[in-house]
Amino acid sequence: MPLIRFYVQEGRTPEATRTLLDAAHEVVVDVFGVPQRDRYQIVTEHKPDQMILEDTGLGFERDPSEQILVQVFTSPRSQEAKLAFFDKLAAKLQDVCGLDPKDLMISIFENTQADWSFGFGRAQYVTGELG
Amino acid sequence: MPLIRFYVQEGRTPEATRTLLDAAHEVVVDVFGVPQRDRYQIVTEHKPDQMILEDTGLGFERDPSEQILVQVFTSPRSQEAKLAFFDKLAAKLQDVCGLDPKDLMISIFENTQADWSFGFGRAQYVTGELG
Amino acid sequence: MPLIRFYVQEGRTPEATRTLLDAAHEVVVDVFGVPQRDRYQIVTEHKPDQMILEDTGLGFERDPSEQILVQVFTSPRSQEAKLAFFDKLAAKLQDVCGLDPKDLMISIFENTQADWSFGFGRAQYVTGELG
Repeated sequence: MPLIRFYVQEGRTPEATRTLLDAAHEVVVDVFGVPQRDRYQIVTEHKPDQMILEDTGLGFERDPSEQILVQVFTSPRSQEAKLAFFDKLAAKLQDVCGLDPKDLMISIFENTQADWSFGFGRAQYVTGELG
Repeated sequence: MPLIRFYVQEGRTPEATRTLLDAAHEVVVDVFGVPQRDRYQIVTEHKPDQMILEDTGLGFERDPSEQILVQVFTSPRSQEAKLAFFDKLAAKLQDVCGLDPKDLMISIFENTQADWSFGFGRAQYVTGELG
Repeated sequence: MPLIRFYVQEGRTPEATRTLLDAAHEVVVDVFGVPQRDRYQIVTEHKPDQMILEDTGLGFERDPSEQILVQVFTSPRSQEAKLAFFDKLAAKLQDVCGLDPKDLMISIFENTQADWSFGFGRAQYVTGELG
C-alpha cells in the first residue's frame, strides 16, 4: 500500500488516465519509499454534477472538468512524508499532466500494516513476508 | 471537509441529485459549523443487485430503489455533533427529498486535519491558512 | 456493519456477483459473529486500465480480469478475527467462485460503533438498540 483512489471527471482518454496513474505512482515510490511494485490504484469517472469540490473559503474556483480528488488509504505515515506527498504530487501532476494545482484535492486515511492482505488470504506484514 | 460519499440507486434525475446534495450540505454547515464553501461531495449510482443494505436485525426492510448510504470522511467530530448529524440529516432528507428515514444509512470515518490538502499541494490546516 | 466495498472488473454476470456477495457474507457472519442481516455490501465494476493491483514485490502477477479488491469498513475487530477473515475469505472465494487466492486483495479500515446510523437518524449502538 498505499491504495489510492482517484476520482476524476468522465471523458478522459485511457492514455491520459495512464499518464496520471504513472505520475502519481512515481511520487508514491519517491516520497513513501515503497517498492516499485507497491502499486494499488483505482480510478473512477464522475459526471460534473456528481462531484462537487469547493474551497472552504480559501478563495479559488476549481475547474469542474479538470478537478481531481485523490484519496489515499495507507498504514501510518509521518507528517513530514504526508506534507511532502501533497507538495510533490501537485508539482508532478502539474508538470506531467498539466493539472492546475488548485484543481487537486488530497485526503489521507490510515489503518495499520496488519489490516492488509495482499493475496493468498495472508497478512504479509504479520507473517513477515513484508516488513 | 467533511468529504461525503453518497451511494444511491441508478436512475435519479440530475435535479433530484442536486436537491439531495444541497439538502445534505445544509445539514453539514449547520451541525459541524463549517464554512458555506466547505463542500466536498461525490455521488455514485449503483444497480440494485450491487448495493445490499440490510438491517442487522433491527426489524425493517429498506426500499432498494430508494435507499441511500452516506459515508462521511472527516477530521474528528464530537459524539454530540455526530448524533446531531445523523438525526438532522434523516429529518432534512425526509423533509426535502421525501426519503423514508429507514432508507438512510450513515457511517463516519475520521482522520486528522493534517491529512487534508485542499489544493496547491499544501496542507492548509498545517500552514495556518485554515484552522 | 462491516460495510464492504467490492471492486471488481467489469463484465461479471449478475449471478456471479450474487454468488460472490453471498459467499463473502457467509464469512463475515462466521468470523465476526454478526447477525445474519448485518449485511452491507456495495460492488463497483472497473475497466482494466482503471484498476491496477500489483504485488509489492511478493512475486506474483494477478489476472487483471479476475482480481478483486475488498475494502472493509468496520468498528474495531481483534487481530485474530482479521487474520481469520483474510484466510477464510480467500478459501471461500476460491471454493465457491473459483477465485485464485493471489487475485484477492483485502484492506480493513476501522471506526467506532458510535459512528454508525443504520436508519432513522439514530446511532443504534449508542441508543442501545444494538450492542
